Amino acid sequence: MRTVLINTGTELLLGDVQDKHLSFISHQILPLGLRIDEQRTVPDGTAIRDALNELFLRAEIIFVTGGLGPTSDDITREIVAELLGLELRRDDAVMTAISERLSKRSIRSTNRIPRQADVPAGARVLTNENGTAPGLYLRKDVNPRIRSPHLFLLPGPPRELQPMFCESVMSILRSIVPASLKLSRRLYKIAMTGESIIEEAIGEEILAIPGIELGYCARPAEVDLRIIGEAAGVDRADAIIRSKLGSSIFSTNDESLEEVIVKLLTERKETIALAESCTGGLLAHRITNVPGASAVFLAAYVTYSNDAKVDALGLVSDLIKKHGAVSEPVARAMAEGARARARSTYAIATTGIAGPTGGSVEKPAGTVHVALASTDQETIARRFFFPSDRETFKQMTAQAAFELLRKKLRTEV
Amino acid sequence: MRTVLINTGTELLLGDVQDKHLSFISHQILPLGLRIDEQRTVPDGTAIRDALNELFLRAEIIFVTGGLGPTSDDITREIVAELLGLELRRDDAVMTAISERLSKRSIRSTNRIPRQADVPAGARVLTNENGTAPGLYLRKDVNPRIRSPHLFLLPGPPRELQPMFCESVMSILRSIVPASLKLSRRLYKIAMTGESIIEEAIGEEILAIPGIELGYCARPAEVDLRIIGEAAGVDRADAIIRSKLGSSIFSTNDESLEEVIVKLLTERKETIALAESCTGGLLAHRITNVPGASAVFLAAYVTYSNDAKVDALGLVSDLIKKHGAVSEPVARAMAEGARARARSTYAIATTGIAGPTGGSVEKPAGTVHVALASTDQETIARRFFFPSDRETFKQMTAQAAFELLRKKLRTEV
Repeated sequence: MRTVLINTGTELLLGDVQDKHLSFISHQILPLGLRIDEQRTVPDGTAIRDALNELFLRAEIIFVTGGLGPTSDDITREIVAELLGLELRRDDAVMTAISERLSKRSIRSTNRIPRQADVPAGARVLTNENGTAPGLYLRKDVNPRIRSPHLFLLPGPPRELQPMFCESVMSILRSIVPASLKLSRRLYKIAMTGESIIEEAIGEEILAIPGIELGYCARPAEVDLRIIGEAAGVDRADAIIRSKLGSSIFSTNDESLEEVIVKLLTERKETIALAESCTGGLLAHRITNVPGASAVFLAAYVTYSNDAKVDALGLVSDLIKKHGAVSEPVARAMAEGARARARSTYAIATTGIAGPTGGSVEKPAGTVHVALASTDQETIARRFFFPSDRETFKQMTAQAAFELLRKKLRTEV
Repeated sequence: MRTVLINTGTELLLGDVQDKHLSFISHQILPLGLRIDEQRTVPDGTAIRDALNELFLRAEIIFVTGGLGPTSDDITREIVAELLGLELRRDDAVMTAISERLSKRSIRSTNRIPRQADVPAGARVLTNENGTAPGLYLRKDVNPRIRSPHLFLLPGPPRELQPMFCESVMSILRSIVPASLKLSRRLYKIAMTGESIIEEAIGEEILAIPGIELGYCARPAEVDLRIIGEAAGVDRADAIIRSKLGSSIFSTNDESLEEVIVKLLTERKETIALAESCTGGLLAHRITNVPGASAVFLAAYVTYSNDAKVDALGLVSDLIKKHGAVSEPVARAMAEGARARARSTYAIATTGIAGPTGGSVEKPAGTVHVALASTDQETIARRFFFPSDRETFKQMTAQAAFELLRKKLRTEV
């Protein structure tokens, strides 16, 4: 079934907001055998009408995101009603839900708010649990006089669209998509190995299997490897990938490294503390994004200044003077200090030069030391070189630190 | 000049990676009077050929991103050479740059790497300082026998595309775009105020100005307000917006709240420490993303466990027993503890219930206390309620905390 996603919003084309819907919706619909065959971003106004007019004949399912809110640039609802020749009616139940939501949050209404309760005749309302504007579903040929595909109008903010998609849209899709479309898909996530090294290890053998699609997505210090195809071919490819890449695969389940670590620590009833210098809180932020992190994560000491390293982690102040803050002995002492301080099973420390300034010939920007202290083994230290922009440097260092801990938890270091 | 962006990559349509190029490129080209009039995402393979074939006649400038890498799904270079009837030749200078890059990083080459040095005859090579695959620029009608627009082939990873765009693409665009296209654009960033409240304050008056486009982009606890149009109208709108919204505008320069805070603290030669519970390191991560943060940021104590609050911040342990960890007295004591410990001018503390679990009737998930300790004034505390998913909750709390500090630095609290 040819499926199209239209993201509306001048703010997208002007670069004031980044689309997250393509990625989210694709993941959701793939198990149904659906793919987004085409995605477009169009500005507010008549362009939405033109795109819909053109795609009404080519698509069987259309998702439209955005333009359902209260402000003057939100006109998706009105354009669709007009295109399909349907009357807009104010829906009492929607109006009540909007009023209740506003009063719970002590937000007063404005005269534009009620527009969001307007519903084209024949449309099904999709409840929005995280915002005021509901979604709308218009079934294929909802107005028998006008040919149209299945049409889903969804809110722009991801935190509103995503729960609505899981709770309402998916069950509608299941009822309209034939079961025969199903495809298999596997995902393998690998940290600290480049995509061309991975391709060299597995590419030729995998591509020799008929009908298998192989794709790579490179992120900072991470490659996501994906295969798609008929079940039998996917199973053959899976066996090859597992035998060649083995334990360097950290997830086959779309988990992040931090999710894997929280899961492993929870299973082992162990705890973690962090001593962060150059990562500046990113390790802690990533760990605490995982629901249930509080069972394993005790504390992070983000010691950006040298004084803070000495005060919070109990470093001997001569150590920094002797070796410099970016050095293996300091990384080790930070990890050990954090572990002792938080009384955790493990502690990871990072110290490095994010840049753009602060580098030297001996220690250029991008140099970083990572250390892992634990109860049962001597502290492990590793040096890396990630010459990059500031945020990529932080992300790569976080990957290196988490991968070191993951290997330790699998007793590979 | 009609400008189109084509993002290639099955990984985009499958949702394995999120596009960042539309947003970035739009921002870059707007001052030249260019907008992305249409954006499409297409899968690898023949779809790129079809899209280009179709858009060659409709567009004057086309940006294509992705498909220039070493792996088997990277075929943009080959397809463009074929469409334009140009021979692909291996470029020695590019090959040398690739080899040098790999050896600097101690990465060994594979037999697929050299493909990235293939260049269509007549194309201009755009140096890639952050990856192996260079970009390519093919001028309008580069092959006189085939009509074609200005065509830019750019690498997929944002950390490679972005510096290339600023350094090479922009200067080419300046030479091909007429100066008469220029538009004015203003951006206003406002924290902790909803978009319909802002629209009520300014919408009617702004929309009464002819030719002015008004747009809103809502993020967690932040609204970006944008106006675009002829210079005179934009100036009139600007005066209205500034008089109505005043100091609640935290940036007119596309800065983040943390950039504004680092700038203000740097000007004042003051320092900040953080005591984070529910934000779990996000405040520190955001602050340390700002280049130069080390001049003002001393330390963050991410005290997730109660023991860590007592140990690292010196809280009287009875305080948590008496009021609970999520309470105003604990937030105040955390801020004061962090400030004393780090000997900073200010300290911000956050303690709340991110959810989904851990709430109660009295303190439902979403409840959060923020406190700000300073040298010159009694500690300030605020209570907020952000019922939301975990990551949005963290972001909203960070906004509330940073906005409290920003107002303090402008002596508004």
